[in-house]
Amino acid sequence: MTEDQPSVQGAVCPPPLPHRDRIVLGHGSGGKLSRRLIEQVFMPALRNPFLDMRDDSAVFQIPMMIADGARLALSTDSHVVSPLFFPGGDIGRLAVCGTVNDLSMVGASPLYLTAGFILEEGLSVADLERILQSMKHAAEEAGIFIVAGDTKVVQKGKADGLYINTAGVGLVDPLVNISGANAKPGDIIILSGSIGDHGIAVLQARGELGFESQIESDVAPLNHLTHGMLEASKEIHVLRDPTRGGLATTLNEIASQSQVGIIIEETLLPVNPAVASACEMLGFDPLNVANEGKLVAFVSESSASKVIEAMKHTEIGKDSVAIGRVVSTPPGIVLMKTQIGSTRILDSLSGEMLPRIC
Amino acid sequence: MTEDQPSVQGAVCPPPLPHRDRIVLGHGSGGKLSRRLIEQVFMPALRNPFLDMRDDSAVFQIPMMIADGARLALSTDSHVVSPLFFPGGDIGRLAVCGTVNDLSMVGASPLYLTAGFILEEGLSVADLERILQSMKHAAEEAGIFIVAGDTKVVQKGKADGLYINTAGVGLVDPLVNISGANAKPGDIIILSGSIGDHGIAVLQARGELGFESQIESDVAPLNHLTHGMLEASKEIHVLRDPTRGGLATTLNEIASQSQVGIIIEETLLPVNPAVASACEMLGFDPLNVANEGKLVAFVSESSASKVIEAMKHTEIGKDSVAIGRVVSTPPGIVLMKTQIGSTRILDSLSGEMLPRIC
Repeated sequence: MTEDQPSVQGAVCPPPLPHRDRIVLGHGSGGKLSRRLIEQVFMPALRNPFLDMRDDSAVFQIPMMIADGARLALSTDSHVVSPLFFPGGDIGRLAVCGTVNDLSMVGASPLYLTAGFILEEGLSVADLERILQSMKHAAEEAGIFIVAGDTKVVQKGKADGLYINTAGVGLVDPLVNISGANAKPGDIIILSGSIGDHGIAVLQARGELGFESQIESDVAPLNHLTHGMLEASKEIHVLRDPTRGGLATTLNEIASQSQVGIIIEETLLPVNPAVASACEMLGFDPLNVANEGKLVAFVSESSASKVIEAMKHTEIGKDSVAIGRVVSTPPGIVLMKTQIGSTRILDSLSGEMLPRIC
Repeated sequence: MTEDQPSVQGAVCPPPLPHRDRIVLGHGSGGKLSRRLIEQVFMPALRNPFLDMRDDSAVFQIPMMIADGARLALSTDSHVVSPLFFPGGDIGRLAVCGTVNDLSMVGASPLYLTAGFILEEGLSVADLERILQSMKHAAEEAGIFIVAGDTKVVQKGKADGLYINTAGVGLVDPLVNISGANAKPGDIIILSGSIGDHGIAVLQARGELGFESQIESDVAPLNHLTHGMLEASKEIHVLRDPTRGGLATTLNEIASQSQVGIIIEETLLPVNPAVASACEMLGFDPLNVANEGKLVAFVSESSASKVIEAMKHTEIGKDSVAIGRVVSTPPGIVLMKTQIGSTRILDSLSGEMLPRIC
């Protein structure tokens, strides 16, 4: 399988990428074509001293504070959103923010990410480059590095453009103790802004709304927001980003993990009017629609106002609002006071509403 | 989208998995069906105290030695092998070993892995369970935990059964300094066993050999082997596992990264007779065929014999052998003394030989 005319590996300028406009199976071979794809498409966007090492793993020192009892957080997310581009973002931004946010939701400061790409034969290299630029910008916004990566290519019809997995490591301050199991009766529940924007923006990009709208995904890194919140108070018991399944599912997960009751008020939930209209026409509940740049925080009553204050000082959290509180009974149940004054059980999403929104 | 009859989330025994025999889109919703899939299929295989936390990230202390100047390693690999099961392994074993080995190849002791699953609608749950069992066994064999995971479901025809990404973190001893850029003239090149077994085993599983054979993939975790090698000597300059592109591509990468020449001897390369026959009939060069349980080590001449000795004391490295050495010129070039006594340039794999072998 070697070429008839052996060429000098390690030349400074590899020959131009053949089939530059489309990904071919050879780009996943691990051989010369793979190397050209890395050098000519991935590296220009993501280059940093760690990737420049070109070893099987990135190796790094961790900050000195680790010696003082800090812990590490590790998380992963695969992204299969369809379509790849949508108002307010794309699969690349989603992939970086997804893992940055999962790390942030245990109170960690994200440090380093990995990215694994599964490319479908025939993918436009221009689209790939656009997505990589988006990852670069999201990484800069979050203040993290993508330090290791992997690329595979599958035959046409065995993926849908591309899928991206990210994993990441972060550092948790010794004074931080955040978990879905830590909600306590009396905690105030804070939401960082409007719900349902991401899911509806993706539907709109699929042309499934059936009408024009200006809804943009909220996809954004939440680590600067959580950093400010934890500066304001360490009495934050739970943090979670209501992605798939929406706010209703997230609150049910927390009620179940902590074995507490939750009461929220429907009238306090911020929903963009365009999202509310779209949900009404489609028969969706915004409480079940995915978000990619929002969080809920469960905070001790004494710290709630300063945490909300800190959140409102950020652009991303300027609409933060207390939406309810934790009660001791009934454990595992989420109740909602509705607009008409009644109280109903708010259940998790059952089945599939919007496939492949992240 | 809430159900007409709200049920109590957090019940100890969730109802049996509907459509138990096949994955449906709802298993990727993030809602109740997702939860059932996690509780009834993923957790029984992979359960550990980290996954039991059910938070967005796993949080852990790292060993005290970190204070003494140790570093962390981070790596990722996506796995798209076709078929999912092959002689000697499956995609689950491959996914665990792939990242364990990438960490081992910088001299790290692997600690924790993440696993991201992309499931195709219609995948048999029995196959998924078999693959998860295989991951569990490989993790036990390597002595690591899978501490965080993610599951997405895509429509039928948008994947090929399932794809698995793994990422992992490991600890690097302060005295270890291993990189593809560290090869030095005079280094002895050691190979840990026969080449080509994995690639040919996968071809055989596809029914593409056209004849019967007993070839098994070599897929295995290499961390215990590298641990023993580093106990024997810290004078190991390069470690790499010759996966996609085979040994020829790996040696070319190292020659290029270190800007050294490499000379190996064809007669010293261990190739299983069945692999050699298969390669001859198919027109493949075993030097370009993937391995998943082998490594090459570049070791200072003074330490080579004790490193080989340590390798031979392990089952996985019992056939270890010195296959060549590093020279100063020509930089970036790999030369091979052939069986007939001539010397030829050994080039990287060009294009794609065997798609989706890992």
